Amino acid sequence: MRTREIAEIIGGKLFGNGETEITAAADISAAGPGRISFVKGDASAIETTAGCVIAPEGAEAISGAECVIAVRDPKLAFARIAALLHPPKVRPPEIHPTAVIASDAEIGEGVFIGAFCTVGERSTIGNGTHLRAGAKIGDGVTLGEECVIHPNVFIEDGSTLGDRVILHAGVVVGADGFGYVRGESGEYEKFPQIGTVVIEDDVEIGANTCIDRGALGETRIGAGTKIDNLVQVGHNVQIGKRCVIAAQTGISGSVTIEDDCVIGGQVGFGDHARVQSGAVIGSQAGVLPGKIVRPGVWWGTPIQPLDEYKRQNAHVKGLDRLKNEIRELKKKLEKIKEGNEDQ
Amino acid sequence: MRTREIAEIIGGKLFGNGETEITAAADISAAGPGRISFVKGDASAIETTAGCVIAPEGAEAISGAECVIAVRDPKLAFARIAALLHPPKVRPPEIHPTAVIASDAEIGEGVFIGAFCTVGERSTIGNGTHLRAGAKIGDGVTLGEECVIHPNVFIEDGSTLGDRVILHAGVVVGADGFGYVRGESGEYEKFPQIGTVVIEDDVEIGANTCIDRGALGETRIGAGTKIDNLVQVGHNVQIGKRCVIAAQTGISGSVTIEDDCVIGGQVGFGDHARVQSGAVIGSQAGVLPGKIVRPGVWWGTPIQPLDEYKRQNAHVKGLDRLKNEIRELKKKLEKIKEGNEDQ
Amino acid sequence: MRTREIAEIIGGKLFGNGETEITAAADISAAGPGRISFVKGDASAIETTAGCVIAPEGAEAISGAECVIAVRDPKLAFARIAALLHPPKVRPPEIHPTAVIASDAEIGEGVFIGAFCTVGERSTIGNGTHLRAGAKIGDGVTLGEECVIHPNVFIEDGSTLGDRVILHAGVVVGADGFGYVRGESGEYEKFPQIGTVVIEDDVEIGANTCIDRGALGETRIGAGTKIDNLVQVGHNVQIGKRCVIAAQTGISGSVTIEDDCVIGGQVGFGDHARVQSGAVIGSQAGVLPGKIVRPGVWWGTPIQPLDEYKRQNAHVKGLDRLKNEIRELKKKLEKIKEGNEDQ
Repeated sequence: MRTREIAEIIGGKLFGNGETEITAAADISAAGPGRISFVKGDASAIETTAGCVIAPEGAEAISGAECVIAVRDPKLAFARIAALLHPPKVRPPEIHPTAVIASDAEIGEGVFIGAFCTVGERSTIGNGTHLRAGAKIGDGVTLGEECVIHPNVFIEDGSTLGDRVILHAGVVVGADGFGYVRGESGEYEKFPQIGTVVIEDDVEIGANTCIDRGALGETRIGAGTKIDNLVQVGHNVQIGKRCVIAAQTGISGSVTIEDDCVIGGQVGFGDHARVQSGAVIGSQAGVLPGKIVRPGVWWGTPIQPLDEYKRQNAHVKGLDRLKNEIRELKKKLEKIKEGNEDQ
Repeated sequence: MRTREIAEIIGGKLFGNGETEITAAADISAAGPGRISFVKGDASAIETTAGCVIAPEGAEAISGAECVIAVRDPKLAFARIAALLHPPKVRPPEIHPTAVIASDAEIGEGVFIGAFCTVGERSTIGNGTHLRAGAKIGDGVTLGEECVIHPNVFIEDGSTLGDRVILHAGVVVGADGFGYVRGESGEYEKFPQIGTVVIEDDVEIGANTCIDRGALGETRIGAGTKIDNLVQVGHNVQIGKRCVIAAQTGISGSVTIEDDCVIGGQVGFGDHARVQSGAVIGSQAGVLPGKIVRPGVWWGTPIQPLDEYKRQNAHVKGLDRLKNEIRELKKKLEKIKEGNEDQ
Repeated sequence: MRTREIAEIIGGKLFGNGETEITAAADISAAGPGRISFVKGDASAIETTAGCVIAPEGAEAISGAECVIAVRDPKLAFARIAALLHPPKVRPPEIHPTAVIASDAEIGEGVFIGAFCTVGERSTIGNGTHLRAGAKIGDGVTLGEECVIHPNVFIEDGSTLGDRVILHAGVVVGADGFGYVRGESGEYEKFPQIGTVVIEDDVEIGANTCIDRGALGETRIGAGTKIDNLVQVGHNVQIGKRCVIAAQTGISGSVTIEDDCVIGGQVGFGDHARVQSGAVIGSQAGVLPGKIVRPGVWWGTPIQPLDEYKRQNAHVKGLDRLKNEIRELKKKLEKIKEGNEDQ
């Protein structure tokens, strides 16, 4: 791909050599000839031998770079070009002879099914979807088009996935939720876990993450939401569209996270909490059961607005001084009392 | 199932139509004709078209419901009826032709072994147990009767499971614990991880949870205990009977949790801690190594009784005011001093 | 193995019967005849029937033990003897007939490849390496010698492992990192995740842990580092040599952990943090993005030196008293004021 062509695709202004051939994307620290990279801020201190650098508007040259393309959002432009230079692996359509596929499963066109996969009865695999080695698809599962199901994923009976869904290795979709009722003798009896999971279009879910099925109803992940590795999503959770949820966060049963929320890593949600559209929750925060989290930036356990969290933290750090001040006050008071008594 | 029959099974008092045919369980918000649901508290504001609602004693009619059954514990009664209406999937006995089973393994009656399973040497699979696709059972493993081992579970050599144990997809039982000794040159050398795991009857373990084998002795999960997804159970941990442990909790080596404890999600236990029978520990709490946790409700890091935790939290929230009070005191004192000096 | 022989191997001083035959290692509480165990501290109160006890220098006899071997570091000596008495399972070289191996993969000598394994194109499996049932190795992967890859592990295309690496069941190496750029319409677009993972010699990684590939560069785990179960290692993370990282810790993208660090369980690292060589971080701690953590012992969220953390905790616990002191001061002040006004 020539730089002139790249500039056109990303709608940028080209400075320098428009005929430079670019074959790969790279980090600015590692980029050399034939590579394209990007910088987000001031590029004046950068020294590189990159074939091309995508830079913020205003930049016209970068020391050592053959060519600079200026755009409004360099990272976004770079991501798009990198996606073209490094397209996702295309596996030619194939059903591996070892795969075990129910006779009444519907397999679309251009589907790849790797070694040791299983597809259960009445399941549907949409056109262009990939099941990599060892992926297990239960009965009555619907997978949309152009999905990539990575190795050793398990999707339980009755789950529904939209188009372009990516499930990374080891993901478990539709296992029973965690619900019990205590019987008269103290034994726990299983509360029914007979609901389903719906994962909408363009969702990506990280390795070894678990999405439990609904107890009676459904667990739903909204279109365009991205979930990192080792996340727990409990039964009946409703996650909106375009949310981002970082690794190891745990979402208890019946939590609702509305559209466009950003959730850090290792956050914990008590059941029935509701996070309103656009809220941002910092890593390791704890949300109490039933809590309504309004838009804004939240932090800590139990969560509070970031400003309050910071002020409170400062107060706690200042406790040493506070104690000293009180000691001083006591002494002064004592002195005054003595003075008064002396009179 | 007719409502009259249901009332008999759950020992409830029936009001309304005893001949209503019920075919499925549903949440009260989604229940319609032919569905049974339940309410826990006051039902006077509820409007439903459910075929039947299980309600607390005292209730005699619910607006729109064809029939009401009054019982002491509606949720428990509902769970039992739902289990009858939606019995766990029965897989007809089968050993899939792709399964790899050691010639000296003992396979009971009515066993289901799915595609791509392995069963190692000298292992025993009890009557009626299901191994779903891709479950791997090591050598010398004993599985009791009526267990369900979900896809891609791995059970290491020498582990022992009781009856009716459920392991959800991706569970790892019996991997090496995390124990090393530092050698003279600073390299870590493996401390022997040669013990076993024993999982007693009626235990259920959530997806992608890990139960490490004992270092020298055994790791044990007591009868009737329920463990959620993505939980870490370290080597030599002893968990009692009828405990409930929520998702993403981490239990370090040699911790003891006695019977009937309730542990929230994302809790961390330092090694050799002991939780006494009946204790309740809130989510995200941290238990220091060696700590003895007495019965009661505990919260925070390091854990403290819930009351203390709340009081302390209130104090921290009040630090702003405290600082103001001290400032006021200082001013007043200054005034008094000035007054005295003026005299 | 006779005790005389054992004493020689571990360079210890033998007291008692040097001809005792030892066949197994055991915990001191469970050791009987023919077993070897160890004690770390004072052994005067110990009563045992162990065949042999390894004890600290100075110990010459332990009540009931047939023989005592005194060494500088009993636990280390015990670990070494236990490793000899209980060597890791040797699987005779074999390629299971069900395994699917690319025709251009290079398989070394003495390799074990279990049932339902896959090895992709151009991948190399070093001499003496074991792939247990269901392990999936992508394309262009290099595995060193004497590695043990446990069941259901997945290693993504292009990853490189050194010698003697142990990956426990369910580990995922090289899945895409969590990186997106928000487009003009609010949709998240994937930032390229096209880098690699390098795992150096003698690394051990616990069950269901995830090591993401670099976004553009590489994620690297240094030689001799040990990582526990359910840990998250993000893209481009650099972990040094001889680090120990306990279960459920989460390491965000581009974090650097230098050599010889000790990280507790459930710790969270914000992106681009750097932990300097030799630092120790307590369980459940939280490290802010970009933070530099100097050598020393750290605790809490946000992390602080352990001493400060303890002092701060004590202050917070003392807030009750502090409030009372302020109340007292107020009263006294009021009294003085009244006294002054009376004059």
